[in-house]
Amino acid sequence: MRGKVPHLLHCGLVRAALPIPRACTRRIAPRVYFSTRTRDMGRGIKPSRRFGAQQQDVWSIINEAAAASPIQPIVNMGQGFFGYNPPAFVIDAAKGALDRVDCNQYSPTKGRPRLRKALANAYSPFYQRAIDADKEVVITTGANEGMLSAFMAFVEEGDEVIVFEPFFDQYISNIEMPGGKVVYVPMTPPADGASRNTSAGEWNLDMAAFEAAITDRTRMVVLNTPHNPIGKVFSRAELQAIGEICVKHDILILSDEVYDQLYYVPFTRIATLSPKIAALTLTVGSGGKVFYCTGWRVGWLIGPEELIKYVAAAHTRICYSSVSPLQEATAIGFEEAESRGFFEESKREMKGKMDKFNEIWDELGLTYSDPEGGYFVLANFARVQLPPDYVFPPIVANRPRDFKLAWFLIMELGVACIPPTEFFVPENAHIAEDWLRFAVCKEDHILEEAKERLRGLKKYIK
Amino acid sequence: MRGKVPHLLHCGLVRAALPIPRACTRRIAPRVYFSTRTRDMGRGIKPSRRFGAQQQDVWSIINEAAAASPIQPIVNMGQGFFGYNPPAFVIDAAKGALDRVDCNQYSPTKGRPRLRKALANAYSPFYQRAIDADKEVVITTGANEGMLSAFMAFVEEGDEVIVFEPFFDQYISNIEMPGGKVVYVPMTPPADGASRNTSAGEWNLDMAAFEAAITDRTRMVVLNTPHNPIGKVFSRAELQAIGEICVKHDILILSDEVYDQLYYVPFTRIATLSPKIAALTLTVGSGGKVFYCTGWRVGWLIGPEELIKYVAAAHTRICYSSVSPLQEATAIGFEEAESRGFFEESKREMKGKMDKFNEIWDELGLTYSDPEGGYFVLANFARVQLPPDYVFPPIVANRPRDFKLAWFLIMELGVACIPPTEFFVPENAHIAEDWLRFAVCKEDHILEEAKERLRGLKKYIK
Ligand SMILES: Cc1ncc(COP(=O)(O)O)c(C=O)c1O
Ligand SMILES: Cc1ncc(COP(=O)(O)O)c(C=O)c1O
Repeated sequence: MRGKVPHLLHCGLVRAALPIPRACTRRIAPRVYFSTRTRDMGRGIKPSRRFGAQQQDVWSIINEAAAASPIQPIVNMGQGFFGYNPPAFVIDAAKGALDRVDCNQYSPTKGRPRLRKALANAYSPFYQRAIDADKEVVITTGANEGMLSAFMAFVEEGDEVIVFEPFFDQYISNIEMPGGKVVYVPMTPPADGASRNTSAGEWNLDMAAFEAAITDRTRMVVLNTPHNPIGKVFSRAELQAIGEICVKHDILILSDEVYDQLYYVPFTRIATLSPKIAALTLTVGSGGKVFYCTGWRVGWLIGPEELIKYVAAAHTRICYSSVSPLQEATAIGFEEAESRGFFEESKREMKGKMDKFNEIWDELGLTYSDPEGGYFVLANFARVQLPPDYVFPPIVANRPRDFKLAWFLIMELGVACIPPTEFFVPENAHIAEDWLRFAVCKEDHILEEAKERLRGLKKYIK
Repeated sequence: MRGKVPHLLHCGLVRAALPIPRACTRRIAPRVYFSTRTRDMGRGIKPSRRFGAQQQDVWSIINEAAAASPIQPIVNMGQGFFGYNPPAFVIDAAKGALDRVDCNQYSPTKGRPRLRKALANAYSPFYQRAIDADKEVVITTGANEGMLSAFMAFVEEGDEVIVFEPFFDQYISNIEMPGGKVVYVPMTPPADGASRNTSAGEWNLDMAAFEAAITDRTRMVVLNTPHNPIGKVFSRAELQAIGEICVKHDILILSDEVYDQLYYVPFTRIATLSPKIAALTLTVGSGGKVFYCTGWRVGWLIGPEELIKYVAAAHTRICYSSVSPLQEATAIGFEEAESRGFFEESKREMKGKMDKFNEIWDELGLTYSDPEGGYFVLANFARVQLPPDYVFPPIVANRPRDFKLAWFLIMELGVACIPPTEFFVPENAHIAEDWLRFAVCKEDHILEEAKERLRGLKKYIK
């Protein structure tokens, strides 16, 4: 399985000659690249400004690099898809649903009643009250389309939405689609993250900076806990502070909790802190993350009826309804998960993978930020020295150091990971340029192979 | 299975006392209703104008009426979902996909290569050239989200999109979401449709009216063939005329061909008429319609690379990617359909249902518009006399006659169908107020039951 690592300098030169992803020259807005080739396309086929900017996003850069690497197959710890199947009882439920006529046809636009009920049952214990399955839950096409529905429902042209950096990249385009303006507030890692293992919980959100970012146009704030890519689980005190600021300024909270079954420290849901906070909060979940099936595209939003009804209206117009048989399977998953001990097992298993994988950093003498939740770990590469004569293609050469590190790892070691500066605006990219994000939701033997390959880093560590 | 039909007048009065769907009072814009209850919700939870209007659409009116009918179960010939399962080879393919790790995880955002290839292979014979599976096909979350992606990709605030009436209702909100303005051009039925059986092909689009509707802001036109709800298959000559007008004015064509496997007269795809027309055309398809699985949410757009790349960018931001295992199953469906004779059988079967069901109109002495494609039939109810003292709830009382007819059928006969004036703007609603749309994609015994129930109409026909 392990490819031969060709000679370093040769490799760096070869890379420069490889077909390079579409050339990007000018940074116009955060993370938006324009192609240098602008063709006069006539009125008919001029794209909207919205998508006219051909973005070269981190996923396509990393995927193209991975495909072009001389080391094949790549060990892919980049994107957060699972390297293994959903549990058998959920797969079986999906197969069973495929035999039923109603499970193959349009579901109600708000989602299948059985899934809404299963979710209401599963979430009610965390809330101060019973969740109304009919009015306070809407099923969406993955968490992604659920969040877009929320922005479409509440954001008008020129409205502002606060996003903490680093951020899950889809938030940005989803906020911009209805004409919203993103206002960024950075979170910062502990200053000495290069010299000791730190905790993801040490990443800090400056509450004063958050409150200062609020204006008359602020409509929403997006929260993510457990956090991608940091792995931070926001503490009860932090959430209380955020919630109170939102209540004070009457701002909606979109709480992205897609990793809510994977926490390794106590986990609090902001919607459960007080009725006033709950009245402003939409909580986002993902069946793909809970049951290891990111390709099933079943997500949901939970919140007060007064909010959910507009999200549901937007969702109806975006996708009409979501995938029926896999909604049914997700319902059965929730119905049975508790009694099967699935959530506990899932958490224990992921934490085991995380700890086992992170042994490599101690072994290499690098440090990492120990996650409190989720399946991503940030490792600190400040001590890794890239060969000064290594040739990077333009797409990477113009970007922060973490892109170069990621490129180098793919090309020289055959391990793909994600450069986290992609999740910051350019001004704040320096915060994360020494870190790399690795997804550990992979089979154990793949993680072992990754560790073996990463041992090749030794000679670049000063 | 057949419920007791209670006494008519009693029933009409009972209906007025039933919980009525949320009250709607003012018609502000075509098909958009505002709730009379406007609450001061504070800045935080004010919905965007986009979805602030709580629409009472035809689907919810009919579904709520069906649920409230004294005759249960209702024979539902309203919505176009299938009353039976996808073919076994497609179900089996879905079950097989569920056992494969890659089929349960995120697909490439543009869709699974196997499905894109299967579609390119299936469609290439109709085109003058081989379709490039990598660049000219994008998989979407149903045809619906595919069309939204196209509007998002090409429509700017204030741009105009021409839609022919009657229209599939999702077009309207999907055009309005990116800020587009819908310009309506009506199609008209033969004048004597109440006195003889006509052909769906006799519905006429006035090409001069179409061209006259084009302005400097016109960016796209939406075409639908085979047509919902008319059942018209546009002739080659008609498509040629439409295509030439679009080429002349440099207007994109979104050709919604989701019923493309169900045609009973020769079927032409506008994209195949000339390279110039092809360069402006996005063709829309739906796995749900082809393989009887509307709940799977697998759709696609096919078109030139210069258009598809922007649609794909929009789709990535709307849903990220579409449902993986059911994309795989749809791919296998296309790979095997031809050799299994599935498309031929599917067409023959649906045409059989259509003809068998339509016998009821001859029997009753009513007329219908014989469909050239799809699974909807429009029957003419001009000769049906509603009892003058029948009490309709406000939601129906304020709407055209077809809504009253549909309500009456649900409440008195236990048969649900769709009033087609919903698919016209109010000024043009009169065109269709004597017609009702019935979906025949139901099991044969259900169609027989529907006919039996419809015999109860006899006494209302003058
Ligand atoms: C923080 C976060 N939110 C949302 C999503 C999207 O979830 P889904 O696959 O259900 O759309 C992801 C997926 O990576 C994520 O990391
Ligand atoms: C004309 C037309 N276009 C598009 C659609 C939507 O297709 P899908 O279910 O694939 O989103 C329908 C569904 O009824 C339709 O009738």
